[in-house]
Order: sequence, then structure tokens, then C-alpha cells
Amino acid sequence: MAHRVDAIAQALGARFEGDGTLAVSGASEPSSAKAGQIALAMDPKYAAGLAEGEARVAMLWEDADFSAFDLDAAIFVPRPRLAMAGLSKVFDPGPEIAPGIHPSAVIDPSAEIGEGAAIGPFTYIGRGVKIGAQARISAQVFIAEGVQIGDDALIHSGARIMSYVRIGDRFICNPNAVLGGDGFSFVTPEKSGVEEIRNTVGKREEIHAQHWTRIHSLGTVIIGDDVEIGANATVDRGTVRATKIGNGTKLDNLVCVGHNVQIGDDCMMCGQVGIAGSVKIGNRVVLGGQTGVSDNIFIGDDVIAGGSTKIFTNAPAGRVLLGSPAVKMETQVEIQKSIRRLPRLFAQFADLRKTVAELRDNKGTE
Amino acid sequence: MAHRVDAIAQALGARFEGDGTLAVSGASEPSSAKAGQIALAMDPKYAAGLAEGEARVAMLWEDADFSAFDLDAAIFVPRPRLAMAGLSKVFDPGPEIAPGIHPSAVIDPSAEIGEGAAIGPFTYIGRGVKIGAQARISAQVFIAEGVQIGDDALIHSGARIMSYVRIGDRFICNPNAVLGGDGFSFVTPEKSGVEEIRNTVGKREEIHAQHWTRIHSLGTVIIGDDVEIGANATVDRGTVRATKIGNGTKLDNLVCVGHNVQIGDDCMMCGQVGIAGSVKIGNRVVLGGQTGVSDNIFIGDDVIAGGSTKIFTNAPAGRVLLGSPAVKMETQVEIQKSIRRLPRLFAQFADLRKTVAELRDNKGTE
Amino acid sequence: MAHRVDAIAQALGARFEGDGTLAVSGASEPSSAKAGQIALAMDPKYAAGLAEGEARVAMLWEDADFSAFDLDAAIFVPRPRLAMAGLSKVFDPGPEIAPGIHPSAVIDPSAEIGEGAAIGPFTYIGRGVKIGAQARISAQVFIAEGVQIGDDALIHSGARIMSYVRIGDRFICNPNAVLGGDGFSFVTPEKSGVEEIRNTVGKREEIHAQHWTRIHSLGTVIIGDDVEIGANATVDRGTVRATKIGNGTKLDNLVCVGHNVQIGDDCMMCGQVGIAGSVKIGNRVVLGGQTGVSDNIFIGDDVIAGGSTKIFTNAPAGRVLLGSPAVKMETQVEIQKSIRRLPRLFAQFADLRKTVAELRDNKGTE
Repeated sequence: MAHRVDAIAQALGARFEGDGTLAVSGASEPSSAKAGQIALAMDPKYAAGLAEGEARVAMLWEDADFSAFDLDAAIFVPRPRLAMAGLSKVFDPGPEIAPGIHPSAVIDPSAEIGEGAAIGPFTYIGRGVKIGAQARISAQVFIAEGVQIGDDALIHSGARIMSYVRIGDRFICNPNAVLGGDGFSFVTPEKSGVEEIRNTVGKREEIHAQHWTRIHSLGTVIIGDDVEIGANATVDRGTVRATKIGNGTKLDNLVCVGHNVQIGDDCMMCGQVGIAGSVKIGNRVVLGGQTGVSDNIFIGDDVIAGGSTKIFTNAPAGRVLLGSPAVKMETQVEIQKSIRRLPRLFAQFADLRKTVAELRDNKGTE
Repeated sequence: MAHRVDAIAQALGARFEGDGTLAVSGASEPSSAKAGQIALAMDPKYAAGLAEGEARVAMLWEDADFSAFDLDAAIFVPRPRLAMAGLSKVFDPGPEIAPGIHPSAVIDPSAEIGEGAAIGPFTYIGRGVKIGAQARISAQVFIAEGVQIGDDALIHSGARIMSYVRIGDRFICNPNAVLGGDGFSFVTPEKSGVEEIRNTVGKREEIHAQHWTRIHSLGTVIIGDDVEIGANATVDRGTVRATKIGNGTKLDNLVCVGHNVQIGDDCMMCGQVGIAGSVKIGNRVVLGGQTGVSDNIFIGDDVIAGGSTKIFTNAPAGRVLLGSPAVKMETQVEIQKSIRRLPRLFAQFADLRKTVAELRDNKGTE
Repeated sequence: MAHRVDAIAQALGARFEGDGTLAVSGASEPSSAKAGQIALAMDPKYAAGLAEGEARVAMLWEDADFSAFDLDAAIFVPRPRLAMAGLSKVFDPGPEIAPGIHPSAVIDPSAEIGEGAAIGPFTYIGRGVKIGAQARISAQVFIAEGVQIGDDALIHSGARIMSYVRIGDRFICNPNAVLGGDGFSFVTPEKSGVEEIRNTVGKREEIHAQHWTRIHSLGTVIIGDDVEIGANATVDRGTVRATKIGNGTKLDNLVCVGHNVQIGDDCMMCGQVGIAGSVKIGNRVVLGGQTGVSDNIFIGDDVIAGGSTKIFTNAPAGRVLLGSPAVKMETQVEIQKSIRRLPRLFAQFADLRKTVAELRDNKGTE
């Protein structure tokens, strides 16, 4: 679908120069842009590519000189990635889900689906489910009994939303995500080895065979507004109280959130992050890919962890973490510098010992 | 569904005081408990919450004084988590899967499904499958040809159980788990770089282009009784012999078990654990979240690994491991202490060198 | 299905001795082989097992002495794993997917499916999809609008292939894999904490609340020939240009590939590998299980990373990496050796300081 330059500029809150009535039907990198597309050259380093491509319209950096380029129109943006958010929203057609409810879908008669829903084939919606207006639910989705979802949901194919999960407005659920699976919670009749070593720092004295008894999850999952869950991610339900994810929080693909976890607002959990049971995470926390968080700890507001950080202990608000075990990023940088210098240290230490031994021996023979 | 206090106490093997005929219909944390629920106050620190909530019935710690609380009945438990296992089982209604076989399900006529099965919509069951009594199989499940599953199975939506997988009784399979996918096993016509560096510790001399040829998996997966598999977990089939998971073993969400792996009884593999091909794991092994195990190694009985431990070499029975690379937990604690002291060591070492140099120089000038 | 020894030998390009007309119907480890199976004894250490099993036919190492075994026929192979590739292909019956299109499948009339397709129940294929000849598409698969797939595809149950993804010939997609989900790309109106600490190495001064705005993914995913994608793996679509996976590249289970990533030919990404957005990876790169790659970096041709390696910076071609943060494998081996010696170093250092202090004091008192 084509959009006029002036309309795009308005959507982005940006100014434009040239012919605002021109329409573009897609975005591209400058060098491979075709006629009819808008070239993305929001940094001077991409400007050279404009001559290679065929675009007559471009998105340029804020103080670019329009007259310096052979273009018919340009939009000028101060914060390129923010402009990309707006532009990509304009051009994203979204998934094709035919309006209405596909005849093959199985929907319990007691379910309440809001106005304007599109529900794909082979989707199952259980007893008492309530879904708001304008829902787009793709094919082969599973929504169990008692689930409540707000307005404007987009739920992709293969998502599994288990019983009584409650979700706010503008929810996006990527394919094959699982919300509200049972928590991974087991207990042994007698003290288990894991309980033992928590007290003994690794010493084992009472090893004996016993089986795991399951603790069922009676809680559910409660998710705020504007949340997005990644493909193949899992969020387990709580044992008694609910697992919670706050407003505006985004989970990437293959993220693993354990039972009872509380995640605040506007957090970002990157790919393959794992959060063990009963962790409490504040607002605006960002955990880099493959970060792990041990069970029952506390991560304060605005904590940021670099990729693959392994957090074993509470992290105060505002802390920037890196490494395994996680320490302050600047401390980790120091540690890594020290570690790289270790082989040299060992060599220098050996020399010094020799020197000292000579000094002592000379002294002794005096 | 409501349960009487005396019946719950009996189910838990616990004593109660007060009016055992009272019925409760759910469990809650003390401060948020509503009338008709049982408040969970199995530790004195939760007792204060009882006054805030509306519960007239509570589960208390073993030697709690019933008369000290304004309650109509209480159950007294010595091991709270074990009591939670029993209580949560009483109150878990389980997933709603309508009795009988949903008309949309596609089930091969040769499949044998035991008495009392409930099978949801859009589920596929292939040729020659045998499933025991009282199976609860949710919607959109895939069970390939030749699969055998014991009695009392609970298989959630989106699970994929591939051909000829054999599973014992009381199996629980969480949503979107995949059992019996092909192993990740490839070979190059000539020696590959990976084979080269295993001998040279990282030196490369024979780099040349070649393609990967697939080794198909002729084995299957054999799973014991009382096993639970987490959401989006994967267990690959064996190359020739079967991949095996012993009785009572529990796999958490997003766990990755490679081809030919042998896991013993009563193990627990926490979220995102990865076990490479042909690993042999004993009984009662517990691997913390995000632990990794290199291919072709051996993990003895009763090994416990903390979160994010990376195990590259055989681990003897009873060993408690931590870190990357994994070492004994107590050694790792020492190592981390040393590492944190490194910056100070470097400073002290520089001082000492200076002192020694002065001593030597003074000596020289004597 | 039974295969004659001479035919198998020919398929493997190997020589045989004994009765080539004998047929075998499966492969087994020597000690558990049944009559009618071929025993796999490609190393002298497995030869002892031949006597325990019932096999009359074996696959032996290259210069084995046929007359030394009580066998009716044997095939001799120089590179056992390569022979296993050929043999396992011979014996793998592949998944049972009934020929033709199952009546329950929902296929858009505009979709073009090549000759000889087998498509299972509850599968959805969208508008304008083009799939080549001899496709085997299992049950409950989702293929969105505009997808193009070459000849001889094998797509297992629960796979989700999102809009406009383009895939070459001989594609294998394991269960519940997701190709072409939206990228995990968000921006805040003002500079975010993550942007701040990239410049300050962890210092935070400008903490303030703000929400994440979504950058939609306008690009798709382009996949070459002979690619295999593991169970529950995810490959995100690109923001503007496509995410790309080259010919012959294999992704294992639960691998996470971010938006805009470019992976070359003949790579191997083992279980749970995570590759963040906009990474560029060369040809023949092998990343061990649980390896992580930071966003926007470059991994040269023929790089090999051991298990759980965490790559934060560019890696030149041919580099062999290990550890977190990744360094050359031989450097990592040195580092680990040094780290293990640290407690002793601290003790020796304390001794040396004492010695020096004594030397200095003696000197002072002289």
C-alpha cells in the first residue's frame, strides 16, 4: 500500500522537503532501493548509496542538505531508530487473517469475542474466555478456559494461552509461545540434596534415593497492557499467587520465565533469557540475551545486564551488570583485564621469587 | 470444588484442630485470602497476614498454637513444601478437556486408545499408536506412528511426539514440547575443522570447504514412568540406540536433550538446560537452569550443578558443581574470591617488586 | 524394508565380503543386534560385541579381517561416521505423511503446490504460497502468505513459516520451529539506558521512565538450499533487508537467530545457540551448544567456538574460540590453568611478602 510523503512525515512528527504528494510503497536500504520506495539514509555514511539505488524519496538525517541529493522529496529525522519505528508501522501490513471466525475454529459457546475479531483456522477457544475488540488470532492457536484478553490483541499461530491467564490491551504474542504452563516445582519427602548444599556450600553427606512430588500451580499469569511475548517463549503460572508481567514489558524469543516471577513495567528481556522461580524484577530492567537470574532474588528498577550475565544475588536499582557471576560492569571490565594479564603475572612472580631467593642467599652467605 | 478440612488433613497425612467439617474451595496467601479459602501460613513470618485476610481456615507450621489465631480450623504441617504438593493436587482442577474424542480429531483406525480417554480438537494420532487408560490429550497435539504411551497421560496442546517414541505411565507433557525429533548429527566427507581442533587444541591447518552430510536418526526415545517434560523442551531421538529418560525424571521448559543421551531416574533438569549428544547421566542428578553438558561425557549419580554451570568433563557421583568450566562448588567459591582480589594483588605485587628492587639496589651500592 | 548387502555397499561406495545377496532390515549395535540386522562394528573395540549379538552381517572398519568373525557378509568402511550417514539414509523410512492433501487442510486457492506433495491434517497454507515438487508437509503446519519453498521439502508438525519467507530446495524443518517471526527491536523516544551505558561503560546518570516503541520488521527471511532448522528454533525476519541463512547451513534445536542476521554457507549452530540482531557470520562457522553472539558483530569464515562460548567482539576468519568472554581456545586454556593456580599464587605471594619484609627488616637492624 502506498503512502504520501507528507502523510508519513506527519505520522513521524518530522519535516519534509520537496514534493509531499509523492507516494511510496515500501522502504529499502539506499543502494538497493527501487523506484517507488523510500530510501533509508538517516546517517551521512548511507548517503553514497542513494546514487546507486533508484529511490526518488529518502529519509535523511536531521540537518542533511536536501539540495545536495538528486531526490524529489525527503523526510528529515533527528532520531533514526525512532523514525524507523514510525515508518515501519506505516508499512507493516500485518499478518493476513481473514475477517470473522474461520468455520473450522472450535470456540466454546460461552466464550465472548469482541467486535471486529479475525480468528484463523484450527484455533481453539475454551469455556468462558473473554477477548476484547479487534482481536487478530491466527491459525492453530490454543486459548484455554477462563482466559481474559483485552482489546487489539495479535496472537500468532501456535501460541498456547493456558487456563485463566489474564492479559491487557494491545497484546502481541508470537508463534508457539506458551503462557501459563505449570510451574516447575517439586519437593522430596525428606530434605533433598539441593536443600542440603544450600546450607553446606557443596558438601554432601545425606545422599539417599527419593522421588520428586509435584507441586501443582494454582495461580495463573497476569499480563499488563502493551506486552509482547517472543516466539517459543514460556511464562509459567504461579503456585498460589499469579506470575506477573507489567505494562509495556517485552519478552524476546525463547525467554523462560518461571513460576511466581514478578516483572515490572517497560522491561526488556532479550533472547533466551532465563528467570528462575519467584524472582522479583523492577521497572525498566533490561536483560541482555542468555542472561540468567537465580530463583528468589530481587532485581531493582533500571538494572541493565549485558549479554550472558548470570545473576546469582540481589541487584540494587540502577546497577549495570556483566559477567558470570554478575558484578558491576566496570568491575567486570577490571576483572577481565586482570585475568588476561595473569600469565604475565605468573612469569613475573617467578622472577621475583628468584630475585628474592638470591638476595636472601647472598645475605646468608655474607 | 470445595474440600473439607478433615479430608484435606487426611490427604496430607497431617493433623488438624478446630472444625474439620468446614469446607474450603481454594488456597491463598494469608493477607489476600478470601472467606472460604485456606490461608497458607506455614511459617511464623506469614502469621501476621492472617489478620489482614478473611480466611477462617489456615495451614500452619507444625507446632503453631491454634488458640493464638482467630480461626475456625487449621491444619498443621511439618514440611511446608511437601504439604503444598498435597494441597495443590487437591485443588488443581486440571485442564478442561471434554471426555471422549472430539469429532475434529484425526485418529488412525489402527490406533488403540485406552478406556476413559479425553482427546481435544485438531489432534492427530497416527498409525499403530497405543495409548493407555484415562489419557487426557489436549487440542492440536501430534502423535506420530508407532508411539506407545502408558496409562494416565496428560499431554498439553501443541506437543509433538514423533514416531515410535515409547513412554511409561503418568506422563505429563507440557505445551509445544517435542519428543523424538531427529538428532543433530552431521559428518563431512573429509575430517572437519571440529575434528581437527579436538586433537590440536585450537590450531587450524587444514581449512577447506566441504558440506555437511546428514546422519539420520534410526533410534527413538524411550521414557520411563512419572516423567514430566516442560513447555517447548526438545528431546532428540537416538542414532542407532534410543535416547532414554528414566523413571521419575523431570525436564523443565526449553530444556534441550541431544541424541543418544541417557538420563537416569529421579533427575531434575531446570529451565534451558542443554545436554549434548551421547551424554550419560546417572540417577537423582539435578542440573540448575541454563547448565550445559558437553557431548559424550558422563555425569554420575547424585551430581548437583548450580545455575549456568558448564560441564565439559566427566563428573563423578555425588559431585556438586558450579561455574564455567565446572569445578567443585567449594573450589569455584575459592576461585571467585581470588578473582575478586586480583586487582588488589596486582597493586600489591607492583609494590613488592619495587621493594625488592630497592633492596637489591641498596645491596648493590653497599 | 530390507536392503541387500551389495546394494548398501554400493550406496556407501564401500567394498564388501561374503554373500552380497543377503538382505538386512535394520542396523543395531553389535551386542544387541538381532538376526536380519546389520551390526555396526566400525571400530575394533566394538568387535567383541559381535559374538554376543545375533547379526550375520556387519559393517566393519576398513582393514578388518573378515575371516576372523563368524559372519555371512561384511561391509568395510574407512570413515565410520560418513558410512553411518549413508547407512542411516538407507534405513530411515522418514515420517509417515499420507500422499496427497488431507481433506482437513486449509489451503488458499491461490497457493501453488508442486507435484507429488503430501500434506497432513490441520495444516494451513496461505495466499500466494509456492511450494516445489515432492513436498512432505506434516500435520498442523502453518505457512503464511507469500512463502516460497523449493523442491523436496520436509516440514514437520507445528512448524510456523511466516509471511514471504523464501526457502531453497531440500529444506528440512523440525517440529515447532518458527521462521520469520518479527524481530525484537524497540526504541525509546529519548536515549535509553542501554544506549547510555554503551558510551559510559556502565555509568548511569540519566535514568528516567520511558516506554518502548516497536520497530516493525519489513524484511523477511531468505534461506538457501539444503538447510535444516531444529525443533523449537526461531529465526526472526529482518527490519528492512532480509535475515539470511546460506546453503547447507544447519541449525539445531532451540537456536535463536535475531533480525538482520546473515549466516553463510555450510555453518553449524548447535543446540541453544543465540545470535543477536545484525550479526554477520561467514561460511563453515561452527558454534557449539549455548554459544552466544552479541549484536552487530562479525564472525569470519571457518570460525569454531566451543560450547557455551560468549562472543562479544569480531572474530577473524579461522579463529578457534572458547570461554566467556571468548578468546582464542589456546589462550583460554592458559587462562583456566592460571585461574586454577590462583589460590596457590595468593599463598606464595603472602610468603614472599613475608620474606621480603624480613630481608628489609634485617637490613634495617643491621
